[in-house]
Amino acid sequence: MSVPRVKRLAVIGAGLIGSSLARAVREKHLAETLVVADRDPAVRRRVMELGFADEVPATAAEAARDADMVIACVPVGASRAIAAEVGPELKPGAILSDVGSVKGAVLEAMAPHVPAHAHLVPAHPVAGTEFSGPDAGFASLFENRWCIVTPPEGADPEAVEKLATLWRGMGANVEFMSAQHHDLVLAITSHVPHLIAYNIVGTAAELEETLASEVIKFSAGGFRDFTRIASSDPTMWRDVFLYNRDAVLEMLGRFTEDLTALQRAIRYGDGDTLFAHFTRTRAIRRSIIEQGQETAAPDFGRRAAEKPKHEQS
Amino acid sequence: MSVPRVKRLAVIGAGLIGSSLARAVREKHLAETLVVADRDPAVRRRVMELGFADEVPATAAEAARDADMVIACVPVGASRAIAAEVGPELKPGAILSDVGSVKGAVLEAMAPHVPAHAHLVPAHPVAGTEFSGPDAGFASLFENRWCIVTPPEGADPEAVEKLATLWRGMGANVEFMSAQHHDLVLAITSHVPHLIAYNIVGTAAELEETLASEVIKFSAGGFRDFTRIASSDPTMWRDVFLYNRDAVLEMLGRFTEDLTALQRAIRYGDGDTLFAHFTRTRAIRRSIIEQGQETAAPDFGRRAAEKPKHEQS
Ligand SMILES: NC(=O)c1ccc[n+]([C@@H]2O[C@H](COP(=O)([O-])OP(=O)(O)OC[C@H]3O[C@@H](n4cnc5c(N)ncnc54)[C@H](OP(=O)(O)O)[C@@H]3O)[C@@H](O)[C@H]2O)c1
Ligand SMILES: NC(=O)c1ccc[n+]([C@@H]2O[C@H](COP(=O)([O-])OP(=O)(O)OC[C@H]3O[C@@H](n4cnc5c(N)ncnc54)[C@H](OP(=O)(O)O)[C@@H]3O)[C@@H](O)[C@H]2O)c1
Repeated sequence: MSVPRVKRLAVIGAGLIGSSLARAVREKHLAETLVVADRDPAVRRRVMELGFADEVPATAAEAARDADMVIACVPVGASRAIAAEVGPELKPGAILSDVGSVKGAVLEAMAPHVPAHAHLVPAHPVAGTEFSGPDAGFASLFENRWCIVTPPEGADPEAVEKLATLWRGMGANVEFMSAQHHDLVLAITSHVPHLIAYNIVGTAAELEETLASEVIKFSAGGFRDFTRIASSDPTMWRDVFLYNRDAVLEMLGRFTEDLTALQRAIRYGDGDTLFAHFTRTRAIRRSIIEQGQETAAPDFGRRAAEKPKHEQS
Repeated sequence: MSVPRVKRLAVIGAGLIGSSLARAVREKHLAETLVVADRDPAVRRRVMELGFADEVPATAAEAARDADMVIACVPVGASRAIAAEVGPELKPGAILSDVGSVKGAVLEAMAPHVPAHAHLVPAHPVAGTEFSGPDAGFASLFENRWCIVTPPEGADPEAVEKLATLWRGMGANVEFMSAQHHDLVLAITSHVPHLIAYNIVGTAAELEETLASEVIKFSAGGFRDFTRIASSDPTMWRDVFLYNRDAVLEMLGRFTEDLTALQRAIRYGDGDTLFAHFTRTRAIRRSIIEQGQETAAPDFGRRAAEKPKHEQS
């Protein structure tokens, strides 16, 4: 089987996602030349040691020069600066993409810097861990996971297809939607869950001292897994909340309204309301299992789920 | 090594916890005679098929007759009725205990029914899954997990020690505290986390239809594990919130105050506040790992963690 390979692929940022992408591209032979840029000399040394890149330049501009595809793997807040640096280097037909967890703001930030002769095709692989840096990455991160591609209106179909092909080559299932819709879906499936996990761990941290130490000791009752989410990278998540503000505030508003209703039911001893609510939520869980989006063990989106049925060959 | 065995041990309720307890007692030879009562004839038949009990009576009263120790493994709201039924049957020196996730209300409900010649020693194994019934149980559920024993003031030390010995025999690490303190600790480590998981899954379920189906499809980003908690038994959790109302409302109040502050930071684009908060929460995670309360994989309290260092032999 001959997979179309990217001639010269540049990855900007050798963090968890960038280094996973580079490893997967290397392992599946998806590019002829793989360039991985990082601004940090220590990270560049580490990338060379790990040996998953052909070239390891210091700047995004250098990496983008003569590249057929450039993928920014940096925090959402850095997208504008990367696009500004990379834009002037893009050759005719080159594709600029990213992996950011927010899409509307990224599109807005990057688009003005992409010359008419190149193509902007943002994307977001829905896969990750709470770790960071070049050592945290692994080639199978995207296998059987969704990658949501959000082409701007009027995007070149061929460019979109090239990016989708790359992601499929890494084992991902590609889905297309508008950036705005992506941001709404992710607000409820990922951003708000992360925010409330960060929040409850913060609440616990501020408890009276003896209580706080017992919270750690007896964390197995549910709290412990919230602390895992709440140990995710602060820079990445700060940017997610700053740049997906509207959708997050909208979903957070619904969340707190609903929580107030449950709180009221507890206060007034309304067991029927609680029971009805807790019964309803079971159905959602069943749907997830039926759609093959869940494996036996909980993992906060870490391991690959079963391949969705309609994607199986 | 000779472990002191309970002569006649009665377990009331062959659900997840009751059947796990029975299996562990059977496997470790912790009782001479093991009686498992359940009100449901289908469950009794299943218990006999599974073969982990010597006797399988229909009523708690029958099970308690002549028992040296009786452990109620029923929802917290059923404790009063079970104590009322079992109380008059308790022989001199007999111990009545339970496994309920709330301790103050259970103590209050059960105490009036325990005759002066018997002993009430409530307890709570901090271990469980989101499944229910006799087939969900397994013998190793309590291994290296905490069991919190909450003896009432003036409890007989010998009776308390007997119960602690049984739990240690099942592999648990026993800790003692007051019922009130237990309820406060568990409110933040378990009850509020469960409530907000139930809540966010409920919020998602009420989304516009197309959005709701995508939430399921892209649930891997963090939401999926909330749905697992939110599929826990509705009866058990209704009772937890009704019977631990005060501590839950107290902790929920702190949680929403803190969430409002984060929400405000998002609204006003205050990245520094977000970054500082997200950095602080990492420390709690580190403490949990250092205390050996965490294994490599997240599990919402399902699998055994490393044995805490001070308990290792
Ligand atoms: N982690 C996840 O679960 C996940 C999942 C899906 C998508 N994403 C998205 O993937 C992107 C990267 O996240 P990650 O988890 O890979 O983070 P990471 O491990 O912290 O790596 C971030 C990378 O971006 C570089 N960087 C940061 N700020 C920069 C700037 N101003 N200019 C140039 N480079 C900069 C870092 O360089 P240094 O070497 O100097 O630090 C590092 O190489 C984010 O947009 C995130 O939203 C993350
Ligand atoms: N699940 C956990 O994660 C966990 C962890 C620690 C402690 N706990 C505590 O353990 C206790 C039992 O929970 P579980 O998870 O084992 O629940 P479960 O699997 O649903 O089993 C509940 C058992 O209680 C019986 N029961 C219910 N209502 C009763 C009543 N009114 N009179 C007599 N028997 C009744 C049921 O009988 P049927 O056979 O008729 O249904 C069943 O045998 C609860 O107090 C819970 O708070 C649970």
